[in-house]
Amino acid sequence: MSKGMFVVSMLVGTGTSMILRLEMDKRAVTFGQIATAVSDAGGDIVAVDVSRVGKTTTVRDITVQVLEQTDAGRIVKAVERLPGIKVINVSDPTFLMHLGGKIETTPKVPIKNRDDLSKVYTPGVARVCLAIRDDPARVHTLTIKRNTVAVVSDGSAVLGLGNIGPEAALPVMEGKAMLFKQLAGVDAFPVCLNTQDTEEIIRTVKAIAPSFGGINLEDISSPRCFEIEERLIEELDIPVFHDDQHGTAVVLLAGLLNAVKIVGKKLEDCRVVVCGVGAAGVACTKILLAAGVQDIVGVDRIGAIVRGQTYANPVWIWYAQHTNPHRRTGRLSDVIRGADVFVGLSGPGVLSVDNVKSMARDPIVFAMANPTPEIAPEEAEPYVRVLATGRSDYPNQINNVLCFPGMFRGVLDCRAAKITEEMKLAAARAIASTVGDNELNEQYIIPSVFNNRVVEKVSNAVMDAAYACGVARRRDPRDAGETAQ
Amino acid sequence: MSKGMFVVSMLVGTGTSMILRLEMDKRAVTFGQIATAVSDAGGDIVAVDVSRVGKTTTVRDITVQVLEQTDAGRIVKAVERLPGIKVINVSDPTFLMHLGGKIETTPKVPIKNRDDLSKVYTPGVARVCLAIRDDPARVHTLTIKRNTVAVVSDGSAVLGLGNIGPEAALPVMEGKAMLFKQLAGVDAFPVCLNTQDTEEIIRTVKAIAPSFGGINLEDISSPRCFEIEERLIEELDIPVFHDDQHGTAVVLLAGLLNAVKIVGKKLEDCRVVVCGVGAAGVACTKILLAAGVQDIVGVDRIGAIVRGQTYANPVWIWYAQHTNPHRRTGRLSDVIRGADVFVGLSGPGVLSVDNVKSMARDPIVFAMANPTPEIAPEEAEPYVRVLATGRSDYPNQINNVLCFPGMFRGVLDCRAAKITEEMKLAAARAIASTVGDNELNEQYIIPSVFNNRVVEKVSNAVMDAAYACGVARRRDPRDAGETAQ
Repeated sequence: MSKGMFVVSMLVGTGTSMILRLEMDKRAVTFGQIATAVSDAGGDIVAVDVSRVGKTTTVRDITVQVLEQTDAGRIVKAVERLPGIKVINVSDPTFLMHLGGKIETTPKVPIKNRDDLSKVYTPGVARVCLAIRDDPARVHTLTIKRNTVAVVSDGSAVLGLGNIGPEAALPVMEGKAMLFKQLAGVDAFPVCLNTQDTEEIIRTVKAIAPSFGGINLEDISSPRCFEIEERLIEELDIPVFHDDQHGTAVVLLAGLLNAVKIVGKKLEDCRVVVCGVGAAGVACTKILLAAGVQDIVGVDRIGAIVRGQTYANPVWIWYAQHTNPHRRTGRLSDVIRGADVFVGLSGPGVLSVDNVKSMARDPIVFAMANPTPEIAPEEAEPYVRVLATGRSDYPNQINNVLCFPGMFRGVLDCRAAKITEEMKLAAARAIASTVGDNELNEQYIIPSVFNNRVVEKVSNAVMDAAYACGVARRRDPRDAGETAQ
Repeated sequence: MSKGMFVVSMLVGTGTSMILRLEMDKRAVTFGQIATAVSDAGGDIVAVDVSRVGKTTTVRDITVQVLEQTDAGRIVKAVERLPGIKVINVSDPTFLMHLGGKIETTPKVPIKNRDDLSKVYTPGVARVCLAIRDDPARVHTLTIKRNTVAVVSDGSAVLGLGNIGPEAALPVMEGKAMLFKQLAGVDAFPVCLNTQDTEEIIRTVKAIAPSFGGINLEDISSPRCFEIEERLIEELDIPVFHDDQHGTAVVLLAGLLNAVKIVGKKLEDCRVVVCGVGAAGVACTKILLAAGVQDIVGVDRIGAIVRGQTYANPVWIWYAQHTNPHRRTGRLSDVIRGADVFVGLSGPGVLSVDNVKSMARDPIVFAMANPTPEIAPEEAEPYVRVLATGRSDYPNQINNVLCFPGMFRGVLDCRAAKITEEMKLAAARAIASTVGDNELNEQYIIPSVFNNRVVEKVSNAVMDAAYACGVARRRDPRDAGETAQ
């Protein structure tokens, strides 16, 4: 694999390493000078590979460990300042893992000879085509549709980066495809769309649907994501799942089911404040309502969303009609008083220590803003009973990776036509159940993303619910002792 | 892999085998009775696998070798007629190779731990996204776009099967994706479109283009295929290639370049008759014109297409303006008289022995109608000097597989913005050159699809031409001693 074709941004994440490709004029500079310059600038050379050797110049790849808090750009500049040195490239291991893309499309069996060729391609393939033409349901067994999901994004709301466009979104969708395959054996292909028009997105996804057994919508901004998802669910006969909404909601509910056990409350009786009424906030609210929670108050920049009032945002109109039965008003600091649960899907520092102190006994705080939570865990810790965030460097990470692989494994295996609310609830309960009652504690309400029992539990629960709801379209593959694949 | 979820058509190809899944009531029938019934009907049991065992019934998979000329349906019926037997499934090896699809999407590197996860997915992926946002050209190096082609079909003209729709077309596109990867290391993904509207297809392909480095259009019917390809070439900055047109044309020209050597004629001086002026016929004509052929006469059901006349079909208007300089008129039997080369892209039996006899000395006949050529090779042989067909069971098979893998390998490696006429000519010459002058003879004018030198020759030639035309958008990767991938 070539590593020479790009130049990366100068700021490398702390605690990582980078590779400098240097052209050195042997007459003007020694390797010792380079090593000294790197070291003085806060770096540590851990490997040197010679890439090309000429008469007077050599090209070397120098791997430099960058110490925490060091500006990698400073190291690069120190090296550039040396005589006889040309910095051809600066790269780092993260970029190298992305070079040329992170997934590939491979044949399941090799074509070894003409007999194989005549089976997988012309003329033999014609009989398979005709079998599908004569019975369209066979596309689910005789093609990749059986196991393939489209990961669709328009690049309008990627991670916390905003509207960076479809090309820049592609690395995220590829990463997601890796997780789909590695965790659940699902083949996923990234479809990044060169349009942000709602109707155009709906048309495009419908047009490409024949190759896919499911659609995972990803990183599409609110409020377009609502209509896009709703319309596609209506108009397609395969499951459509906007992960930013429902993946987050399922994993939140999983964590909350375990958190209320710890504090000895019933979820239905809890007063919940949802802070940030965007795509994820609405989805979290919906799943909490489905799980039986009665008293939910949504808060956004305008303050609490209040039953009986009207709003310009059509989603908030729906929200006002379905939440806040006691018509609480005011800002977050008003409605948080006496609440049992805080669900944050907003921004950094929105929740103060005083807010937490004003909550009911044993506060449960899910501060899921990324990358900086609504309240710093260190500040919150003395006052909360259970704290969860979206981060991997604190306990109780609310991570969609716990949901989407098992969810799609389940819907593909039972050939579900859609994903119902019951299936989402079942997935949440399955995730929660992975933490045994004897393991459960304030620091462990949700399994790790590397817990290998999660996918099977989720997919089984999703399938059970799909059969119960009547949306599964094939005989239960588990009955026959058949494997998923 | 499950083999029990489908039932296939009763007619299995000759000389193949099939697998019968039978439920046997042990009280009513013995295995000996089954074996006798199969044998009497012309089959030969080669394997038995027990699938499920119950108290009174067992389910067995019985693999039966079907003798040539035997009707497999007769074997199935003979078994069904036995007491206590239920035939659950009949399958054959071709169908088994297609079960669950023939390709998969896999991570290039495993995610082994949280450090890997933080590089390929959040939070590390964010830096890669931003690098692409800041310099969009990086999408070609940091994502799958660098090596990924969409194989796009609307299912309107699949093989010789006609308009069978996108789902039924999917097995062909998967087979093509297998060939792309195995022969040329190109990742290809099948995109089967649920629309046959020209504008809608153009819009959809443009919308999904960000993930792809090239578009291979496939099995889209004429005349829509012309406008779809032309518009996409204009409106996209990645190569678009309708394989049914240009793949066929490139391989035809490759064969013809070698055929004229054998008969000692100059291609430019040859009189060529093109029979069947559809997508492939027009493309073959265009490449022959680009290669310097002066005298081409196109013939379709209406007879010769004549310069100066007008036609309802806009493609034929173009055709009339660019071919037939001597304004030959009449039917095939008229214009074939004295011709040096027959290029058939029409239907079975269109060319008679008398037609061939009326050609100039050393007739060259490319009878490429599939699966039945314009003239039976056995009938033509005594009168032609060089004969080529689209079939694998005769010498000189004109097969697109010789072109598309190397063509796309080349355009991806040099990041070509489009495929020019020069690049197609270069591909044809490269394929022709694979047959050495000392190997060349009437039975061997074109390499086998399994000749492993073809892809490299074609991709190199395509890249050379791309650099010469100025459509390549990166430094020649061959200069740096870097590998294609």
